[in-house]
Amino acid sequence: MGALHEGHISLMRQAAAENTDVFVSIYVNPTQFGVNEDLDSYPKTWQEDMDKLQALNKELNGQTGSGRITAVFAPITKVVYPTLPPSSEITGPGSFVTITPLGSLLEGASRPVFFRGVATVCMKLFNIVMPERVYFGQKDVQQTVVIKRMVKDFHLDTDVKIGPTEREADGLALSSRNVYLGARRREVGVVLSRALKAAEKKYLQGKRLRADILWPANEVSSSKMMEQDDLPPSKRARVEVDYISLADPDTMEEIEVVDASKGAILSGAIKMLPLEEPQEREDCGLGGGAVTVRLIDNIILQPIK
Amino acid sequence: MGALHEGHISLMRQAAAENTDVFVSIYVNPTQFGVNEDLDSYPKTWQEDMDKLQALNKELNGQTGSGRITAVFAPITKVVYPTLPPSSEITGPGSFVTITPLGSLLEGASRPVFFRGVATVCMKLFNIVMPERVYFGQKDVQQTVVIKRMVKDFHLDTDVKIGPTEREADGLALSSRNVYLGARRREVGVVLSRALKAAEKKYLQGKRLRADILWPANEVSSSKMMEQDDLPPSKRARVEVDYISLADPDTMEEIEVVDASKGAILSGAIKMLPLEEPQEREDCGLGGGAVTVRLIDNIILQPIK
Repeated sequence: MGALHEGHISLMRQAAAENTDVFVSIYVNPTQFGVNEDLDSYPKTWQEDMDKLQALNKELNGQTGSGRITAVFAPITKVVYPTLPPSSEITGPGSFVTITPLGSLLEGASRPVFFRGVATVCMKLFNIVMPERVYFGQKDVQQTVVIKRMVKDFHLDTDVKIGPTEREADGLALSSRNVYLGARRREVGVVLSRALKAAEKKYLQGKRLRADILWPANEVSSSKMMEQDDLPPSKRARVEVDYISLADPDTMEEIEVVDASKGAILSGAIKMLPLEEPQEREDCGLGGGAVTVRLIDNIILQPIK
Repeated sequence: MGALHEGHISLMRQAAAENTDVFVSIYVNPTQFGVNEDLDSYPKTWQEDMDKLQALNKELNGQTGSGRITAVFAPITKVVYPTLPPSSEITGPGSFVTITPLGSLLEGASRPVFFRGVATVCMKLFNIVMPERVYFGQKDVQQTVVIKRMVKDFHLDTDVKIGPTEREADGLALSSRNVYLGARRREVGVVLSRALKAAEKKYLQGKRLRADILWPANEVSSSKMMEQDDLPPSKRARVEVDYISLADPDTMEEIEVVDASKGAILSGAIKMLPLEEPQEREDCGLGGGAVTVRLIDNIILQPIK
């Protein structure tokens, strides 16, 4: 969807290392945004994106045995949705791919059209480009599970490759939406990755029960919420937890016990609420701190043999 | 779906004339049958089907420049639906292709899961076989419109070819379900093709208004219904009209006036009700005349340049 950051670039590097020709698709897909979601305000940074791709190709040119970014596929919506204008309503008309219940859980619970839109546009992109391999970032973990399921269920002839989540030094997962955070919310936003790390630690220490794994995550996030609530509105960045999940890696359904031979997916979503009292000269991010920023993150609890 | 008749064979002949290798898929797809529909009773005639295909290949072997039936693809359901058992409920779980509102009209109105099942299984079959051309019979006209829409909207790399409806001498369209009719209902069932023919005649005479085109079709079917109602139960075959439709050829939406440069689709569905009093030694068809048999038929009103 454009607004390229180091997470995307690292995926392209991986693709170039494993293939001769890399196609980059840049398309802000309307059908994955709900009626009241941020389609119009989604960052559009075409020139910066092209500059980053050219810089990447320069870097790849210096490497023997590496592929190149061969093409950028940036279609207009009439090409992607040739018959009917794309609908953002769950009951709206159109030709769609639905993956249920997988697409209705977690991220799909708060965004009912999201995975329908993702699966639909990926089916179209795959059919147009016919790639031998497709690359997705682990950051959007449920998306990777949905795409793998779609490829399996519809017998698509492509390999789904997942690249690791790129992070800031303190652990915050890179996201195109981070530009809306600003300094104050940026600092508090790292709580999500810390909470998940605390839970992962329990799994690595041998815990398998949901309660044993999740309590430190809930502990970390609750204490951060309370800490911020106690600060004056001029200094605080309030946060709400959407969910902290411990789920089956194939179905994304919540589990009570981790089967260590399968592993599990630990994931979470938080909302960074608008700044109540932005200060003069404060770095409030794109949008001046007025928009709620929803952050997601996850850690795969790897199978233990 | 197997139960091959001359309609299927004529499609395969057409495919063999236009291609070197013809793949025949035989699969009774559960997701296009509703919970209370006739999945279990759908005719399964594997050996007869294979005999017909071998006879066809013998015929094709005698022709220079013709292709052959190269393979029959007859998968088990676990192959077609690898993750979840296929659901027959409209709200059921699974990975589906939906085409709305097109798939909800006409045949889709009385069978809500039907076109979802058809589109889903065809997407899978196309992805598995990767055919250059796919062949469908015009008999299931809404299915042809749904498949053409799916190919366009999902950018599938295949040509959709439509073969004409094969008919008995008196006009009855061939259908795998005709074996359930028996002699008495068979004779009355021809009313549908006669009604549509009467409407087509008006179009060919220059009529363009819905009322002017459809009244003779309604006239033909009503008088047949009344004629049968007046007969004693031992002699009659009662018939109900599901719909007689005059629709846009791309959207299948009902139209008030035919745009002669586009043409239109004239279609209908009737129900042959169970025989009330089957007679001794009467040919009542498979199932002894006890099952309702739904018949569909259509005529394309061709564009006039």
